[in-house]
Amino acid sequence: MPKTSDEQKEARREQILAAAQRVFGEHGYEGATVALLERESGLSRGAIFNYFANKDELFLCLAERDAERFGRLWLDTGFTGLLRAILAEDPAWLSVYFEASRRLRTDETYRKRFEARAPEVDRQLEARLEELRACGELRDDVPLETLGRFMGIVADGLALRTAAGFATEDADDLLRLVDEAIRPPARSRTRARRSA
Amino acid sequence: MPKTSDEQKEARREQILAAAQRVFGEHGYEGATVALLERESGLSRGAIFNYFANKDELFLCLAERDAERFGRLWLDTGFTGLLRAILAEDPAWLSVYFEASRRLRTDETYRKRFEARAPEVDRQLEARLEELRACGELRDDVPLETLGRFMGIVADGLALRTAAGFATEDADDLLRLVDEAIRPPARSRTRARRSA
Repeated sequence: MPKTSDEQKEARREQILAAAQRVFGEHGYEGATVALLERESGLSRGAIFNYFANKDELFLCLAERDAERFGRLWLDTGFTGLLRAILAEDPAWLSVYFEASRRLRTDETYRKRFEARAPEVDRQLEARLEELRACGELRDDVPLETLGRFMGIVADGLALRTAAGFATEDADDLLRLVDEAIRPPARSRTRARRSA
Repeated sequence: MPKTSDEQKEARREQILAAAQRVFGEHGYEGATVALLERESGLSRGAIFNYFANKDELFLCLAERDAERFGRLWLDTGFTGLLRAILAEDPAWLSVYFEASRRLRTDETYRKRFEARAPEVDRQLEARLEELRACGELRDDVPLETLGRFMGIVADGLALRTAAGFATEDADDLLRLVDEAIRPPARSRTRARRSA
């Protein structure tokens, strides 16, 4: 076999991941077969599994990239920006996450890998939340961890709506509700006075 | 064939539904085969499909019952009571809903059936929300429909956490956050003053 340069390897990896994301999106986690991966990527199973040990590795790698991408979006555009990005995300791909929920519960190794998909961005987000709280942008009457959990729950619920094809025409009002829920009550006070 | 009384029919229906819920929960939507349904219910496929045309009908019927049950819980114990019930729900069964997300998006008939699973309870819930708003228990600066949507998103996000096996140890703080998000700002004001 001819030697492959690092760049070629990287390009090949990208080619496989892009194909896998399309196959997962179109056929679901269960339905994503090796035959479909071969067809979509134009590569043999041997070539594919030379880069990724199995289907789980492919999904977890794509999920790691998403965690990075969504985490950066959160850092760059704020939580509301992240929610807007979720509303605009490919519903077919989002569905794959929901299909993984059973596996996440029943396979602890898998769940731990999933939880730790973007540790560096997670640390930055934690620091950002602490900063925001310190300058009075976030309410301080609940633990920061709980605020983060609430935001995660809202993001997941919104992603599910998108994945299941339900329309969200009132996104602006919805995002305002969420935004006010995490701000200190003082903000609501100001807003109430302003609108009164 | 001997004639079956209505009561016997009803008991048989219940037997099939209970078995189907266990099979769905244990093996997932995709994995719930007719053979497993036969084994779990102790009935032949002929007997099962005499009551329910196919697997979809079984799931939609179980989902209708849940919608009734959860809707009543909401009416009887308030939104916070509903969220507590979701946290205590069987994670295996909850996962089935998430597995249905792709189908909900791609099959409009299915989605419409799913959306209209408990119209009577939905009407009562809508009336309840209007009542609560009229007596100042709900904020009135966003459309009622948006408030309802926000609550649905939170309930779904919490159900996903439960289905995926993530711990929610800070449920009390979390539920307080959600509760305050839907109340009029005046409430937060009172609370802020009280805690100040």
